[in-house]
Amino acid sequence: MTEQIDLAKAVQMLTQAEDILLICHKNPDGDTLGSAGALLHALQAIGKRTAIFCSDPIADRYDYMQLTLYDGSWEPGFVVAVDVAGTQLFGEPAAKYLKRVDLCIDHHPSNSGYAEATLLDPEAGANAELVYQLIGQMPVEFTPVMADCLYTGVSTDTGCFKFANTTPRTHHIAAELMERGASFVKLNELLFESKSQRRLAIEQIALSHLEYHFDGRCALMYVTREEIENTGADSNDLEGITGIPRMIEGVVVGITMRQLESGSYKVSVRTAGEIDACKICAALGGGGHIRASGCEFFGNLENAKAAVLAEVKKQI
Amino acid sequence: MTEQIDLAKAVQMLTQAEDILLICHKNPDGDTLGSAGALLHALQAIGKRTAIFCSDPIADRYDYMQLTLYDGSWEPGFVVAVDVAGTQLFGEPAAKYLKRVDLCIDHHPSNSGYAEATLLDPEAGANAELVYQLIGQMPVEFTPVMADCLYTGVSTDTGCFKFANTTPRTHHIAAELMERGASFVKLNELLFESKSQRRLAIEQIALSHLEYHFDGRCALMYVTREEIENTGADSNDLEGITGIPRMIEGVVVGITMRQLESGSYKVSVRTAGEIDACKICAALGGGGHIRASGCEFFGNLENAKAAVLAEVKKQI
Repeated sequence: MTEQIDLAKAVQMLTQAEDILLICHKNPDGDTLGSAGALLHALQAIGKRTAIFCSDPIADRYDYMQLTLYDGSWEPGFVVAVDVAGTQLFGEPAAKYLKRVDLCIDHHPSNSGYAEATLLDPEAGANAELVYQLIGQMPVEFTPVMADCLYTGVSTDTGCFKFANTTPRTHHIAAELMERGASFVKLNELLFESKSQRRLAIEQIALSHLEYHFDGRCALMYVTREEIENTGADSNDLEGITGIPRMIEGVVVGITMRQLESGSYKVSVRTAGEIDACKICAALGGGGHIRASGCEFFGNLENAKAAVLAEVKKQI
Repeated sequence: MTEQIDLAKAVQMLTQAEDILLICHKNPDGDTLGSAGALLHALQAIGKRTAIFCSDPIADRYDYMQLTLYDGSWEPGFVVAVDVAGTQLFGEPAAKYLKRVDLCIDHHPSNSGYAEATLLDPEAGANAELVYQLIGQMPVEFTPVMADCLYTGVSTDTGCFKFANTTPRTHHIAAELMERGASFVKLNELLFESKSQRRLAIEQIALSHLEYHFDGRCALMYVTREEIENTGADSNDLEGITGIPRMIEGVVVGITMRQLESGSYKVSVRTAGEIDACKICAALGGGGHIRASGCEFFGNLENAKAAVLAEVKKQI
């Protein structure tokens, strides 16, 4: 059983620790990296040897965070997991630290309590909000690079202040990060106004297959395996396009179908209003949330489409 | 010469006035409508007869603002222009009030001072920030519909807190509007995550013509008149796509060419980093800003492309 601790206790633990390893979750996003990055700079400022460990590579776009990555040249004396809700999110290379996490700093209500001590704030829209408050209690000068790291976490995890997890505190902290030097214009361009060539190529193909059903209340698009391979689109690129059909005015059910290597189709359903995406997908052996669900359909494109649309018809 | 007044004076003028007409700028956006809408509800709450006048139609998407539009059944006793920087923005039907604007409430540094009295805050990212402070000094209870109106103004005019005009105050006010009942999730979906069928159709066609030049540092796409007409895309839809080429990773010059009814091409140039879009367009008889400029090219597509790319080559 983990000990739930408060900010003051976390500060005390960190200031007493030496040789601190900061672990980010696998498939790292702006919040785990920004939270760990700001903490890294704060700990370095009070003279600690510290570095970041992540099981997956970190995208070049985050270079501005000036992260020190763990190179194995020293033995960690204190292990901190940052924005990691459960042990399954460590990934293989980080798994060796699983049994000895001294402190976990997280905002997921589902946090499984795997660490010795846990600083948890489930009210924080982004974990970076919690880390901002933590650093505020440390004897360090707040620097622009810390502000850049934390602004990245706050803005990416809240979908640029659009998602339901955004709170008034999120905005107040964003304001304070701007005052502390976050280069928010540059960051927002990089984080929200940037797409890969591959992503646009697959988007164009998917849109060329866009079709409307049920008086324009349902929009469906698909990409075949061959098209995916021709564009070189990866899973990130493909995940990115699943929100498009639901964005169309009047559409309450948006469907994206992408063919897997096996030939079957992965179906993503996004809904608005009262429509339950999970019901549609559950009927086809899948599941998920009320607004976003998925399922896999074995069979050719026309059969898959017909099956999905038949379920949509029952809900629409 | 207009009299520059402060918040207290503006409140005094409004509370003493009767039969108040609120004028929005032509081609109304979320900020002029949200600012005027919140003011309308505040004035109604203190018992004033008031309504909104705009030279152009107001899109259905703003229905939640519950705007009372001026129906001509009473004679305005006091005329207020809201978020209108200059008289050229009144539009034809509103022009009859030009000579008798009692008060202008605006945030544009370029405000021409056409009103009797002007409440101007050029530091406000959105005019709605100023109106929020104004209503805060009025003896009214702040309602959720006022919060929705002002949140719309604040978020749309700052590109959802991404543009350079966003300030710490913008975020603090957004936080307070959330606390006062702004339904920010619904509003953000409506305002930022919504595209028309026509817009997506023309986007798909433009992307099918996407080409890269200068090692991927320049991306260019175009749409012909026939394509525009086949999709039914209007000027809003077309304006919306001009940002796409510049969003591509590695692209520093993004070009969109759309054919006009005359057959000539309207060229939109968007740049990043050090590249001056205005220099590129000025060489072709156009102009604009450093990051966003435009020009018109008389000639066929291939000639127009070659001419624009030749200018890009000089700057890239």
